[in-house]
Amino acid sequence: MKKNMRVGAIIKILTDSPNKIYNLKYFCDMFDAAKSSISEDVSSANETVESITEGHIITIPGIGGGVKFIPDISLEKTQLIQDRLCSLLSDGSRILGGGFLYTSDIMFDSHLVSDLAVIFARKFKDSGANYVATVETKGIPIASMVAHQLNLPLVVIRREAKYSEGSTVSINYFSGSYDRIQKMSIAKRAVQPGTKALIIDDFMRGGGSLKGLTDILSEFNIEVVGIGVAIASVVPEKKKVSSFSPIAYLEYIDEDKKEIKIVSNSEIF
Amino acid sequence: MKKNMRVGAIIKILTDSPNKIYNLKYFCDMFDAAKSSISEDVSSANETVESITEGHIITIPGIGGGVKFIPDISLEKTQLIQDRLCSLLSDGSRILGGGFLYTSDIMFDSHLVSDLAVIFARKFKDSGANYVATVETKGIPIASMVAHQLNLPLVVIRREAKYSEGSTVSINYFSGSYDRIQKMSIAKRAVQPGTKALIIDDFMRGGGSLKGLTDILSEFNIEVVGIGVAIASVVPEKKKVSSFSPIAYLEYIDEDKKEIKIVSNSEIF
Repeated sequence: MKKNMRVGAIIKILTDSPNKIYNLKYFCDMFDAAKSSISEDVSSANETVESITEGHIITIPGIGGGVKFIPDISLEKTQLIQDRLCSLLSDGSRILGGGFLYTSDIMFDSHLVSDLAVIFARKFKDSGANYVATVETKGIPIASMVAHQLNLPLVVIRREAKYSEGSTVSINYFSGSYDRIQKMSIAKRAVQPGTKALIIDDFMRGGGSLKGLTDILSEFNIEVVGIGVAIASVVPEKKKVSSFSPIAYLEYIDEDKKEIKIVSNSEIF
Repeated sequence: MKKNMRVGAIIKILTDSPNKIYNLKYFCDMFDAAKSSISEDVSSANETVESITEGHIITIPGIGGGVKFIPDISLEKTQLIQDRLCSLLSDGSRILGGGFLYTSDIMFDSHLVSDLAVIFARKFKDSGANYVATVETKGIPIASMVAHQLNLPLVVIRREAKYSEGSTVSINYFSGSYDRIQKMSIAKRAVQPGTKALIIDDFMRGGGSLKGLTDILSEFNIEVVGIGVAIASVVPEKKKVSSFSPIAYLEYIDEDKKEIKIVSNSEIF
């Protein structure tokens, strides 16, 4: 295989599995090439992804070491994605009444969600999280994509304990959005005590469900090292969690005028 | 930017968004290069991804045309992924009793799930589907990744109608696994009547929930053009859906001996 094809192939393989370490020998065997050639190819691959601000390929020395791709995104592309999210959300026909917006099509648009996930992956790349945690349902695609970018297992907290989850721990919490007590439940074998979790979710209003998530994780002595939400409502001003990073803020919904005001969070970058 | 870096960058961009059409002008502007150079680069990019059997870059002529990446996977890699899935599933400690297995860690392992998704994307690339549909919860990551590979919207059918889904249609169906009537619900605005859907789910036993999914979609005159499941149980022999493609078959669970017999489905390729 020619050098420029090797470089392209290395880019494809590393970027398909972000943060997964590949031993150089893997590529030596695949391309029947010497380690010195592969090292040069990896340098070119890194130069390429860095030149388009899509990430970095770094070398991890030692036993179990190798090379891995760390995703990145430029400020310009981040803003374009934020603009696209805001523009999609501003459509007045999304208003459902009671302060609710229809967002399923956005949260289930896998290309958009994968773009949003890279923004979070950049933001939380040094969080030290062992898991990405979310609560079912609408946040699962985005949380799953963030888990993919960070090469972390996903933990999905269920609304109801399911038999197929084995033994579970449940808590009740107050949801301001639904104005009632809700339940969440986590499989005991899904997590290890004493670890760290990054919470990713689609929407936050008062933060009740994120507080519930934090509480249920603390039952396992799991520390929350970051909270990323696609959209955070500006009201209520007082939130039940102290620190969170939204991609966009929902400022207000005017049901009469069918107007939605959404703005980008410039601090996400 | 040098030619070999352009080729690598084109591979990164196209393979990040499978089946999304990029106008050549996009790359001309990005690299400040002539259309003829970019055409050559795209050829080299195609040669590269084809040489490692990871896909094809094709040209779509006409207005709105451009180039796009169609994912592919080799028989050898398919079998390696199937072997890995079977080996993970064969762990006796997964047995929960009542014929249930704990599989959440597998279905929420985003790298494995993204590998499984490419197998389905290859299988169903010519299905003509307009959506990927699944029923919450455990199948969402894999369905979401298949949707990403095929560049289709994901439709998640809920167990319960949610206020945030707006107006919904619900049906009741019989679940053999849980031996009871269950409900599923779909947002009216999530789908267009007269379209086609590809169903992707994590597990199938008798097929009751997939039959329910087919029924609820038929309420919208939506034709199911394929069903892919990660794992299908061999028993019961009689299924409620006639055609489905599993990646692995669950042959039996021996609760006394703590033994699980899982085999690859050689016909998935």
